[in-house]
Amino acid sequence: MSMADTIPHRKLTHECAMKMLNAGIRKANDMGVPQCIHIVDDGGHLLAFIRMDGGKFLSTDSSLKKALTAASNRVPTGDVPPDVDVKLAIATEGKLVNLFGGLPIIVDECLVGAIGVGSGTGEQDLEVARAALAVVEGAKQW
Amino acid sequence: MSMADTIPHRKLTHECAMKMLNAGIRKANDMGVPQCIHIVDDGGHLLAFIRMDGGKFLSTDSSLKKALTAASNRVPTGDVPPDVDVKLAIATEGKLVNLFGGLPIIVDECLVGAIGVGSGTGEQDLEVARAALAVVEGAKQW
Amino acid sequence: MSMADTIPHRKLTHECAMKMLNAGIRKANDMGVPQCIHIVDDGGHLLAFIRMDGGKFLSTDSSLKKALTAASNRVPTGDVPPDVDVKLAIATEGKLVNLFGGLPIIVDECLVGAIGVGSGTGEQDLEVARAALAVVEGAKQW
Amino acid sequence: MSMADTIPHRKLTHECAMKMLNAGIRKANDMGVPQCIHIVDDGGHLLAFIRMDGGKFLSTDSSLKKALTAASNRVPTGDVPPDVDVKLAIATEGKLVNLFGGLPIIVDECLVGAIGVGSGTGEQDLEVARAALAVVEGAKQW
Repeated sequence: MSMADTIPHRKLTHECAMKMLNAGIRKANDMGVPQCIHIVDDGGHLLAFIRMDGGKFLSTDSSLKKALTAASNRVPTGDVPPDVDVKLAIATEGKLVNLFGGLPIIVDECLVGAIGVGSGTGEQDLEVARAALAVVEGAKQW
Repeated sequence: MSMADTIPHRKLTHECAMKMLNAGIRKANDMGVPQCIHIVDDGGHLLAFIRMDGGKFLSTDSSLKKALTAASNRVPTGDVPPDVDVKLAIATEGKLVNLFGGLPIIVDECLVGAIGVGSGTGEQDLEVARAALAVVEGAKQW
Repeated sequence: MSMADTIPHRKLTHECAMKMLNAGIRKANDMGVPQCIHIVDDGGHLLAFIRMDGGKFLSTDSSLKKALTAASNRVPTGDVPPDVDVKLAIATEGKLVNLFGGLPIIVDECLVGAIGVGSGTGEQDLEVARAALAVVEGAKQW
Repeated sequence: MSMADTIPHRKLTHECAMKMLNAGIRKANDMGVPQCIHIVDDGGHLLAFIRMDGGKFLSTDSSLKKALTAASNRVPTGDVPPDVDVKLAIATEGKLVNLFGGLPIIVDECLVGAIGVGSGTGEQDLEVARAALAVVEGAKQW
């Protein structure tokens, strides 16, 4: 194996993704706010998804964009400077969104994916995302 | 029948959708303002549509978006906070629109669809949407 | 409640959708074939999804199309006559697919959604879909 | 008015489009086959639509394409030579479809629109399209 040509990486398992969905659902149930929850890999490809009973169907779009944005930027969503956020949204054909509720999943300084939550207020979405991220062993918490 | 795996719901009939189109057309004729009228189901799928003689063809797009937005948010359209409306519009690929003229169709606390009207002013659009909603037995009026 | 304007229907719960994902994952693990599993509602909107470790990422597209096709046609996928299947695929912008692995979810003669599975052979995909459908109480089995 | 620069044309009214929807619904009810019915103008823009209770949602796509194809080709759909139909479908980004169920609406040798019907067999779709076209005064019948 060449150390020069490839570098170590990690991947989120589907078991972990299911565990995250379950944790997010529990938190959303506790809050009484149905949610859409997307989990993507480090390239933004969909790993897992759940739309809870009564979740807004248009939030399926926005929670995905939050996950994509968190995976790409590697920081929680919602803090893109307002002078560029709409420009970046348009330039990425709507994939970058500047709303709360997206968190990167970083384990041992390695980005393995992201979670995006939508259908509540930005604060509620973020709270559910945090609860889901909390069950990932060794993941950086925000 | 399993209560655990499925829950009761209701569907809007096509007869009711036709009745709504007719009521909307009558109102628009009374006002002298031709309209585009979309009726969607609870998932935002098109159930019925009419573009009246002289209706603006681009309003075919906006009246659909009003119906989608009302069905997803479950409240009349036009009151999304201005600090997030464009972000949400982009994140939903243009499906969420923050204009007057969309109303959810809620019967017995069950969302069964939504109506979106466009081609007049926002106030005219809303007036036609209300007239169409008024003919749905038991529907919540706004 | 108006019987004239709305008719009774049922919805699949997210708990049931999660149960189906878990059953599908178990079956796929037993078979040693990682899968992509989509569960949609009766209008074809995504309810739940999992891509298993090692699942083909392009199968994310095909398993979704299988679910859409099963939900729309209300029969298992793969038996569209060969003289029209490509025409229908094009006419539906790729949404109708004539491959094995999609099953409608019908409870008490009410279509509540569909499951689509992809990443194995058609026979393997169908076997996983059947295992997931088997856990839905009262659902028609195929 | 310049005879050289513009030529007389006719437009289908929305009242006629509603009359056609009603006639199509009646016929489909008689046959016991729920349908999706699109009526477009001479440029292929949507004038009117109904999806009947139990109509396949993917047929919303195919019935629209039948209406577009009939409006563009000005003959009933389904008779494009098999050696070019898929090529034309791809070249038109899926808008041209070679399936039965689309009829042009021609009054006094003037194309004013088209109807497309889908959700049954090709023969059933065509029968409903014919019943809807039959109520248009002076329209060429097929």
